[in-house]
Amino acid sequence: MSQQHSHATFAEGKIGQYLLNRLDEAALYSQPGAGVTRLFCSSEHRQVLPLIEQWMTRAGLNPELDAAGNLVGRCPNALAGEPTLIMGSHQDSVVEGGKYDGMLGIAVPLVALEALRHAGVTLPYGVEVVAFGDEEGVRFPTTLVGSRALAGTLDPQQLEARDKQGISLREALRSFGVEPDGIPALAHDPANTLGFVEVHIEQGPRLEQRDHAVGVVTSLTGIERHQVTVSGKAGHAGTTPMSGRHDALVGASDMVLAVDRVLQATEGLVGVVGQLDVHPNAVNVIPASVTFTVELRSPQSETRQQGHETIKAALHEVAERRGLTLSMDNTYRADGAHCAEWIMRGLEQACASVEQPTERMFSGAGHDGLAMQDVTDIGMLFVRCKDGLSHHPEESISADDGEAAVRVMMAFLQQLDTSRCR
Amino acid sequence: MSQQHSHATFAEGKIGQYLLNRLDEAALYSQPGAGVTRLFCSSEHRQVLPLIEQWMTRAGLNPELDAAGNLVGRCPNALAGEPTLIMGSHQDSVVEGGKYDGMLGIAVPLVALEALRHAGVTLPYGVEVVAFGDEEGVRFPTTLVGSRALAGTLDPQQLEARDKQGISLREALRSFGVEPDGIPALAHDPANTLGFVEVHIEQGPRLEQRDHAVGVVTSLTGIERHQVTVSGKAGHAGTTPMSGRHDALVGASDMVLAVDRVLQATEGLVGVVGQLDVHPNAVNVIPASVTFTVELRSPQSETRQQGHETIKAALHEVAERRGLTLSMDNTYRADGAHCAEWIMRGLEQACASVEQPTERMFSGAGHDGLAMQDVTDIGMLFVRCKDGLSHHPEESISADDGEAAVRVMMAFLQQLDTSRCR
Repeated sequence: MSQQHSHATFAEGKIGQYLLNRLDEAALYSQPGAGVTRLFCSSEHRQVLPLIEQWMTRAGLNPELDAAGNLVGRCPNALAGEPTLIMGSHQDSVVEGGKYDGMLGIAVPLVALEALRHAGVTLPYGVEVVAFGDEEGVRFPTTLVGSRALAGTLDPQQLEARDKQGISLREALRSFGVEPDGIPALAHDPANTLGFVEVHIEQGPRLEQRDHAVGVVTSLTGIERHQVTVSGKAGHAGTTPMSGRHDALVGASDMVLAVDRVLQATEGLVGVVGQLDVHPNAVNVIPASVTFTVELRSPQSETRQQGHETIKAALHEVAERRGLTLSMDNTYRADGAHCAEWIMRGLEQACASVEQPTERMFSGAGHDGLAMQDVTDIGMLFVRCKDGLSHHPEESISADDGEAAVRVMMAFLQQLDTSRCR
Repeated sequence: MSQQHSHATFAEGKIGQYLLNRLDEAALYSQPGAGVTRLFCSSEHRQVLPLIEQWMTRAGLNPELDAAGNLVGRCPNALAGEPTLIMGSHQDSVVEGGKYDGMLGIAVPLVALEALRHAGVTLPYGVEVVAFGDEEGVRFPTTLVGSRALAGTLDPQQLEARDKQGISLREALRSFGVEPDGIPALAHDPANTLGFVEVHIEQGPRLEQRDHAVGVVTSLTGIERHQVTVSGKAGHAGTTPMSGRHDALVGASDMVLAVDRVLQATEGLVGVVGQLDVHPNAVNVIPASVTFTVELRSPQSETRQQGHETIKAALHEVAERRGLTLSMDNTYRADGAHCAEWIMRGLEQACASVEQPTERMFSGAGHDGLAMQDVTDIGMLFVRCKDGLSHHPEESISADDGEAAVRVMMAFLQQLDTSRCR
């Protein structure tokens, strides 16, 4: 991969295309295969950093890679210790994801800051744009590592989480060239932090249905993840009578359908069995064990907890009926988060001033705000995406909608009265 | 792995333990992990060959590795072109299989021949013991490669079959050190071949239920294998409404249960979904596609074909109902085989002469006889295994039962009247 980046200059009036070109270029830093696959602390993560550093420099920010693998760009005011507004999103993608999930929220504030700089506007407060290393939680069985580091809430135990190759997060960060022992020093001072605003594609169909380019987020879903292991007994597939079998895959299939039935029947709860692995996974051996994940999302903690209990009972019923053993371990939990009224109102006023109709909406996805809420007020601006599609190679936004998001952020930054924060 | 093999000498009266010690030693040539994993043309396959060569030499046979990866030991009569009885079984195992499936059928005739030699008995016909390279079909989506080569029925197309690393069978054989272009010359002359007799663990519970050490096989099951691909649509697991999803894993789970229902309801048909892989297999992405295998076994071709049709219709019903696309491709098919009456009677007489009660029984598993029937008469001797368990690390036989099998084979070989073959 060449380290030569396109040096198209900023052109007023072509902001949307300028933004999309940047995102196309960032998408080149991907594992081979469909769409974008860029995991935390991977070589692709390493390779995309100089490109983002260049965006930051053009926006008047000073880029620096921190101890948690975040690339952080700070303006002179922020470097001088002035109260600072944090913006940004995550650089990582899911396996075979799209160009916009995460990277849009890095590119939009940086283009907005570059446009303000180009227009000779200086902001009377500090700004910091962060490219978080990890939000998707694909490589390690943990997530929000970068935002938790900034919030000062990263449990050191999380550094022992291991990927499928057995590499710990601590080892991965060191191989990446940063020293995880420096993470505690990254915690921001709430008194000196104005808020955290993230721009993100909606990943759902609502803005498209209402014909709005952007939406103002009111709250983020809570998420919990569980690892289920079903154990039966392996045996020869031709000589073990059908009636005496303890086939872990037949049991797991019954369980996947049970999870789906609970999800379909529960208002306000969504979820998925996204990962499933069979052991020993051979054409002529009765499966001995199956592991699978259950992810549950709801803005209401009670709905999620009730859903978890119902699913757990259903899985145990299947295991008992089929003579299988079952374990279900919680591997991740993040409660929902509410956006600050002053940020929601500020974004709405910004939309009005650039003549973008908007609406308030809920986020079914988790975001770095789930961690950032522990250190500062949070807010999010959603951008319409085609067919509501995300986590998919065909994820797409229009240049016009990208430009709308940039102009809303420019207005928001210019109109921000720091005395009215909180 | 040390190439030093134990040099315990043959001790009359301790045949069973001598046999089990050999099988324990052979089991050391395995991939790390539970049980025995020794795949076709692997380094473990390469490493076990000197041990089997030593067994052959002690039995008075001349070992030679052939163009299909079979290790073939021939006695002087066989080398001189006399009519020859073939014995043997496969050296390969399933993933995390046991010590006895396959290897027992190599070790028993070699111990029997060694014991006869020790007793000064010379057989008035040729014998050949084969350690077939591949019978389990684990590494390549094809099987019975070695026995088909000896029968002269190996389709050259099968050499293009590829393993999960993309290595073709032809390439694997060359890396293993043999030249697959020599395979056509391996075909045996039916006129000069007396028959093929294989000793194998039962892999089922019947001998244990009847308290018999050995059983005489009447016929072998037919087998067919299919590869199923279910395609839906990936999407973000938090923002795609539950009702609009096309989740390939929910569909595949429904299909696994449908396959199981047909199998449970059909007399004389067994089968399994042994292998299942999810794509992209991430905790927070709706599964886009799932591939799985369906293996069906029945001695009756019609029962198997009818089962396949019923299953195919059930899978299409699920796919249509859930808005998924489906393909189902046949990857393997072998019709059942009947054992020759003269071999069955010869084995029964041998059992009687060493005072082993026995019975005739059907084989639910496929074996190399499925291929060898094309060139000669076939027969099999089953040996009781603990709990009927096979394809499992805990696969086990007793020393007494192993000795019974050796003594039956010694009697069979001594009593064989070649004028009465066929």
